[in-house]
Amino acid sequence: MTTDQLYSEIRKKGTMLCVGLDTDYAKIPACLKSGRSAGEAVIEFNKRIIDATAPYCVAFKPNLAFYECLGHDGLTILEQTVEHIRLNHPGQFVIADAKRGDIGNTARMYAKSYFETFDFDAVTLSPYMGSETVTPFLEYPGKYAIVVALSSNPTSTDFQNAIIDGKPIYQAVIEKMMGISTPENMMFVIGATKADKLKEIRSFCPDNFFLVPGVGAQGGSAEEVISAGANPKGGLLINSSRGIIYASSDSDFAEAASLKAQATARI
Amino acid sequence: MTTDQLYSEIRKKGTMLCVGLDTDYAKIPACLKSGRSAGEAVIEFNKRIIDATAPYCVAFKPNLAFYECLGHDGLTILEQTVEHIRLNHPGQFVIADAKRGDIGNTARMYAKSYFETFDFDAVTLSPYMGSETVTPFLEYPGKYAIVVALSSNPTSTDFQNAIIDGKPIYQAVIEKMMGISTPENMMFVIGATKADKLKEIRSFCPDNFFLVPGVGAQGGSAEEVISAGANPKGGLLINSSRGIIYASSDSDFAEAASLKAQATARI
Repeated sequence: MTTDQLYSEIRKKGTMLCVGLDTDYAKIPACLKSGRSAGEAVIEFNKRIIDATAPYCVAFKPNLAFYECLGHDGLTILEQTVEHIRLNHPGQFVIADAKRGDIGNTARMYAKSYFETFDFDAVTLSPYMGSETVTPFLEYPGKYAIVVALSSNPTSTDFQNAIIDGKPIYQAVIEKMMGISTPENMMFVIGATKADKLKEIRSFCPDNFFLVPGVGAQGGSAEEVISAGANPKGGLLINSSRGIIYASSDSDFAEAASLKAQATARI
Repeated sequence: MTTDQLYSEIRKKGTMLCVGLDTDYAKIPACLKSGRSAGEAVIEFNKRIIDATAPYCVAFKPNLAFYECLGHDGLTILEQTVEHIRLNHPGQFVIADAKRGDIGNTARMYAKSYFETFDFDAVTLSPYMGSETVTPFLEYPGKYAIVVALSSNPTSTDFQNAIIDGKPIYQAVIEKMMGISTPENMMFVIGATKADKLKEIRSFCPDNFFLVPGVGAQGGSAEEVISAGANPKGGLLINSSRGIIYASSDSDFAEAASLKAQATARI
């Protein structure tokens, strides 16, 4: 998918919402578990959440931890989840939230995993081991590396305030990555709980999409994020996971998720 | 496994070697591929490499990228690989080389994946998002978080020279992690291509095991690593992956791997 196609979807639907599919079997409504195996319940939950929220979002983001913990069955569910989106909701941007980051030889295998074995549009990456952890992902036209620059979690300040060449490390990460990529193959994760930082980062990174987690369960406000971080075309994917998919734990879970999605990250 | 048990295995076998199972189907000897599916060839290769090298190493380290790229079949192979080690080579320390790192809620699912769904002793983690990415892994007795402090790859200096509170980031990472853990649940990845740094790090981190990659294909010397990084009890796991498992691409691949293993990281 090109960024023009993604901008077009955002304008058409009037939203920047990305729905995070952090599906935890323990949190799935009881009505879905009856008569189903754990794997069957998770895929049924995902399909119903996807169908209910797809009209009100432009992206889906399964977090791989929630699938790996089910072993090989988990990856089957992940494959089925992506396939369900592709078949039923064309135009959605599908992100593997993986936060991978390894040496070049290994990064090539991860790129192959998400862009060939699985049919994702983008994958989140951790920058700690440097630019070679990212470069293999840039070689796939229409696919994106999404590098974590500034995260939204409480301990993000443990190391993300480090200084390199007089700049905070998140700025050094963004500038290094901008130097080896284009907005057509690179996006950045910028935590939503830091709207002031979002504005500062937009000033030196005007054109790349930002994937913004932390709205909802983590406390960030989508309105503040849009005000601080949008560029003239938009340039944001605003993620909410738990706040939407677990909006209700009863049989109305899909309707509740739909209503939450309709109320989040509208433009 | 306790560190005393691991130290005892190291003394008994006279080696600090960890064999990295970065099994790439494209690099498996042709003789193993004939009449086998890709998955069957990979598991057969792993079993024969494990059986050939187990007498001469104390740890095995599958890198998850090489299994994920085969989709759900890859995780089945990973499960079978760990099971083969557990059944046939008790006493081996088995590491998931995953370099994971995500917010607490997600880190808990990753910890569940590697320590409950899969039967690993340890998992490698990336520190960029701070201490909460690590804490869920510390709650499993006899299991270890292995946090990447200083990596061995060419672009490791892109961000690992950043300064935080007057110290290099890798030192800040190690000191922060030492503050929330003990040597019984925490190890560090320290790249072998930097023997001088290994000595420096050992001076402020005397007791934790270091997992040292970069020996062999990446150019590090095991002798230099032991001289610079060992503590009085040992305290090192020295990894070699490609240098051992691809020592020969012919039908003698297992014998060649065994000979390479016998010659690497002896004490």
